[in-house]
Amino acid sequence: MKAVRLHEYHQQPVVDDVPEPTIQGPLDVIVKVGGAGVCRTDLHIILGQWDAAMNPTLPYTLGHENAGWVHEIGDGVTNLAVGDTVILHPSPTCGLCRACRAGQDMHCTASTFPGLDGTDGGMAEYLRTSARACVKLDPSTQPQDVAALADAGITAYHAVRKVIPLLHPGTTCVVIGAGGLGHIGVQCLAALTATTVVVVDRSPGALELAQKLGAQHTLVADGSQVAGVQGLTDGIGADVVLDFVAEEGAENDGFAMTAPGGSYSVIGYGGELRVPTIDIISTERNVIGNIVGTYNELAELMVLAQSGKVTLHTKTYPLADAQEALADLDAGRVRGRAILVP
Amino acid sequence: MKAVRLHEYHQQPVVDDVPEPTIQGPLDVIVKVGGAGVCRTDLHIILGQWDAAMNPTLPYTLGHENAGWVHEIGDGVTNLAVGDTVILHPSPTCGLCRACRAGQDMHCTASTFPGLDGTDGGMAEYLRTSARACVKLDPSTQPQDVAALADAGITAYHAVRKVIPLLHPGTTCVVIGAGGLGHIGVQCLAALTATTVVVVDRSPGALELAQKLGAQHTLVADGSQVAGVQGLTDGIGADVVLDFVAEEGAENDGFAMTAPGGSYSVIGYGGELRVPTIDIISTERNVIGNIVGTYNELAELMVLAQSGKVTLHTKTYPLADAQEALADLDAGRVRGRAILVP
Amino acid sequence: MKAVRLHEYHQQPVVDDVPEPTIQGPLDVIVKVGGAGVCRTDLHIILGQWDAAMNPTLPYTLGHENAGWVHEIGDGVTNLAVGDTVILHPSPTCGLCRACRAGQDMHCTASTFPGLDGTDGGMAEYLRTSARACVKLDPSTQPQDVAALADAGITAYHAVRKVIPLLHPGTTCVVIGAGGLGHIGVQCLAALTATTVVVVDRSPGALELAQKLGAQHTLVADGSQVAGVQGLTDGIGADVVLDFVAEEGAENDGFAMTAPGGSYSVIGYGGELRVPTIDIISTERNVIGNIVGTYNELAELMVLAQSGKVTLHTKTYPLADAQEALADLDAGRVRGRAILVP
Amino acid sequence: MKAVRLHEYHQQPVVDDVPEPTIQGPLDVIVKVGGAGVCRTDLHIILGQWDAAMNPTLPYTLGHENAGWVHEIGDGVTNLAVGDTVILHPSPTCGLCRACRAGQDMHCTASTFPGLDGTDGGMAEYLRTSARACVKLDPSTQPQDVAALADAGITAYHAVRKVIPLLHPGTTCVVIGAGGLGHIGVQCLAALTATTVVVVDRSPGALELAQKLGAQHTLVADGSQVAGVQGLTDGIGADVVLDFVAEEGAENDGFAMTAPGGSYSVIGYGGELRVPTIDIISTERNVIGNIVGTYNELAELMVLAQSGKVTLHTKTYPLADAQEALADLDAGRVRGRAILVP
Repeated sequence: MKAVRLHEYHQQPVVDDVPEPTIQGPLDVIVKVGGAGVCRTDLHIILGQWDAAMNPTLPYTLGHENAGWVHEIGDGVTNLAVGDTVILHPSPTCGLCRACRAGQDMHCTASTFPGLDGTDGGMAEYLRTSARACVKLDPSTQPQDVAALADAGITAYHAVRKVIPLLHPGTTCVVIGAGGLGHIGVQCLAALTATTVVVVDRSPGALELAQKLGAQHTLVADGSQVAGVQGLTDGIGADVVLDFVAEEGAENDGFAMTAPGGSYSVIGYGGELRVPTIDIISTERNVIGNIVGTYNELAELMVLAQSGKVTLHTKTYPLADAQEALADLDAGRVRGRAILVP
Repeated sequence: MKAVRLHEYHQQPVVDDVPEPTIQGPLDVIVKVGGAGVCRTDLHIILGQWDAAMNPTLPYTLGHENAGWVHEIGDGVTNLAVGDTVILHPSPTCGLCRACRAGQDMHCTASTFPGLDGTDGGMAEYLRTSARACVKLDPSTQPQDVAALADAGITAYHAVRKVIPLLHPGTTCVVIGAGGLGHIGVQCLAALTATTVVVVDRSPGALELAQKLGAQHTLVADGSQVAGVQGLTDGIGADVVLDFVAEEGAENDGFAMTAPGGSYSVIGYGGELRVPTIDIISTERNVIGNIVGTYNELAELMVLAQSGKVTLHTKTYPLADAQEALADLDAGRVRGRAILVP
Repeated sequence: MKAVRLHEYHQQPVVDDVPEPTIQGPLDVIVKVGGAGVCRTDLHIILGQWDAAMNPTLPYTLGHENAGWVHEIGDGVTNLAVGDTVILHPSPTCGLCRACRAGQDMHCTASTFPGLDGTDGGMAEYLRTSARACVKLDPSTQPQDVAALADAGITAYHAVRKVIPLLHPGTTCVVIGAGGLGHIGVQCLAALTATTVVVVDRSPGALELAQKLGAQHTLVADGSQVAGVQGLTDGIGADVVLDFVAEEGAENDGFAMTAPGGSYSVIGYGGELRVPTIDIISTERNVIGNIVGTYNELAELMVLAQSGKVTLHTKTYPLADAQEALADLDAGRVRGRAILVP
Repeated sequence: MKAVRLHEYHQQPVVDDVPEPTIQGPLDVIVKVGGAGVCRTDLHIILGQWDAAMNPTLPYTLGHENAGWVHEIGDGVTNLAVGDTVILHPSPTCGLCRACRAGQDMHCTASTFPGLDGTDGGMAEYLRTSARACVKLDPSTQPQDVAALADAGITAYHAVRKVIPLLHPGTTCVVIGAGGLGHIGVQCLAALTATTVVVVDRSPGALELAQKLGAQHTLVADGSQVAGVQGLTDGIGADVVLDFVAEEGAENDGFAMTAPGGSYSVIGYGGELRVPTIDIISTERNVIGNIVGTYNELAELMVLAQSGKVTLHTKTYPLADAQEALADLDAGRVRGRAILVP
């Protein structure tokens, strides 16, 4: 089958002919890929930025944001049948460690992360995953329409869901970055809270979209955004800041625009947060980390998507054009999410 | 009356003769001071380190950790009678803002902080506070025995109480710094959880005390403490780190010894936390700020104290010897807490 | 001034001429009433049904659902000025007990409940309340338009707010009774969750209104409603049931239609819940009590109302026509809420 | 092998010779039983009281409270090795449904309950369970010493853990029934909270034991217990009532001794709770259901047991004497828990 594989850092991945994956264990599932999202993290992987953390053996197949149809199942699989339409949680988990038993999938001590840790991902015709990673969808769903929810979506949803208890009516929530993840975050906030949403972005187009999706206020990230948030909040700051950028200074701005007693929630990465501890304690502010989300959260997000409360902008490419899709993403030519369709 | 007043930064405070405070509003309470704690924050105040944040007008009376007896009450006070033994929450609050109405005393938008913000504190014979700041005690209580719970105690208790839901049996909680606040924190952990407590401190004496108060493990802060915590936790780190130091590198060590999905909770101050945002998100760690505590938390702490579950080491000085007490604290000659007795 | 006073149980209240209330304590506030809601509880009061619980001395002025303008303030009041437009939390509280300090206004150990406990209520030209009961409104607000939120609204909002954490996307919430409180509850659910709302009511008109306000499904309460809920939930039952009726069997139906692990939340009253304890434990279901709500919840609800997310149907009557308003309510002739305007 | 099987309701179970269980699926585990607890629920089963709820096919092997050693594992089992010492969660779960994915094992939609639902239980030499039900223990642990924690223990721990957030210092928690489950509950309260524990029981011996295990007050259940709790709580009632009896009137007493805003938590069964809905709402009390507990909770409880914070009184019988053990339990001749040892 065809698969988009990374052979060397700082070089483009290549479409190779490789054997189809096979069932190895009783809970394995082979999925015929219907759509594989192209993510900024793929650009980071190519640049070797995840090498230290994940230490994968090259070459391997990219693609950590996948949906498709069940093609084959192991003999211990009880929740799926061949032909089922599924979206895949990015991490097949063990189901046995304390984190799994508490529903904290991302803290599984024995999980893999196909497309990121050296395990073959979904930019291919077929993908091996586990029964525990498959969320069954209505058969009428087109995998390519929802694939981007498997990583961008779940991550934004997870971050929003954690701060819902802080966002009663009368509060303000800043969203920094209304791109692939952020524009889903804005929709989740609108669906699940009555907070006042303020979106900060460099791009006027992104701000315009954010307003259509439910933001009450928008601020151009031109250096005035901290003052802008203070101005909208009587000088107090925002109760919650969701930072989908967290690099190039956004991280310190994000903390600065957080109100006393408030929470600065980090979803993006690349920068360094620097905070004097007296600023943490004298105002009792919190910093919240976020990584992907749980299996149940992905299922919940699919409910929002199927009721039309979260919608996605996507642009599809044939699998063979993976390099073009990556190039378009890198050059800022993709609005919403690029999806490879095998 | 006698009062210990700060006239100029970088100079010792002086025992002055000043008029007694008087009732100014219907909820005012005049307290005859029975004990006023001497805190490291007083040393910081003298060095001008709180000038920027609080901008107090000099001179004013120090002392933000007080207990005593009700001497006079305003005509709107319904919860106290002259003669009642009381410990004072450090911040008289308005009772009317959203924070007060939610029980978040420390986020009151109209509070004062006697002894810190230029309002006269408790290193004096009498102190003006408010009905809302007084926690009534059993009449047999000696104010000088409990005064240190009014600030050191409530702050440690507040930080512990917030992390109780994270500390189920089988978890590990690191306490950095087993001094004035930390040794109370260890006792609160022992009284309210079954977590494994690991105490980190430079002083062998402090570690010995910590062990007596309930710590299961102690580590000398000699540069090996991050590795030490990893060693005690199968290389995973601690579920919660309570950092009562948060300066001179403790803050970055504290974050480093926190497990994936764990929380680094800041109580001390003076240093600067520096964390790449990828380290926050890839492990989903949190940073929690803490400032003093609520009125109800002070009342709860007094229950622990009165049942013997939290005990204090104190050393008393006459009010006239305030300079000596401050000098002893600065030189590390006070074990536990120094208390001025007017 | 004119006031609607109850002189004897089982007799209609009478419009009397009585002296205007005066400031008695430093935190007292005299409000010129702009609107006083007429509530089913007033009918219960007249029938003596609250006599045992509250034991009021007759005669007294009815009216526990009030909004108006600040007319005079005590000398300790700092949060209000004469002329301010205000809606009143039903219970002036002490601000000093543990419940008040935790934001649990309804559990204040020293509160009054004007219009219910023998303290004079708001069916009058003026009302004495406390600074702690007044929520300031935008000056353009007409008190008669919002008065019904002071009791019906806060109670529905409080019940909904408590169950938000249980109502993630994919859950089902049943609302029993879409009358005065219930139709506000449906709007709160739509504003604050993405749960599937199922409304049960005897009246087709109420069900039609519920659908317009955001209910996904409606069921006529004709005896088939438990089966109806099972049918909509794959035989499992609803994750949460909000029972605004809780009499005449609704209470046992409500528990019966609650899913394993779910919560049956009681807001109405009059019936008797009878549950074998094996049914409570074998399915691990909960029963949640609700009484009015907190001051902050009333403020939050006003945010929803001012943004148009919660709207009310009201019908106004001059104060002099109080008997007619009560009769209309009793006869089912009021759609939404009857409001007396002095 | 030998197995204690129930052939007919209202007749004693019989020790039969039956084939050993075999591995049927990839996650199956065969456990050599080291200890099987004898529970009051076994008496109820024999009387047919679980027939309607569980509808088991007779005969089947009793025993839902088991510990032992891993004897054989399926080919998908990754968390266990032959020879491991294990205690068994009572319910092998699917690991795939929403409840399992949220850590809510007891609400698994595809679980079995060996010894209760017709699946063979642990009163036998060998038992088939699943990898997901096994909690690994220190190899030095004697299964017969801990088996009673597998059901009595987890159930008491689960109920206590859920109310910890309600039990800050200064609160009161009543425990009704200090028998098999209750005496574990008292120890869990002492280990995990600083609440004041009041134990109610008919038996002076049980009360004496409760006091040794950490109860501050004891009350004989002679009809004066509601008044007794009121007397100990200034007439307010207990913040939390844990009812391990919930029959013969204890259930209504339990609700009656619950404070306004408090929670009545049901663990026992057999009675019928009858509460006017006005009593639920006017005081905003809650009723909390409890059923067994989660896998992680069992693991946490084992930590408490291994550190000596929870200890058990047990009396062992050879498997062949199962009838005698059941008779002793029924006659009140067992102090603590009877354990069958094959």
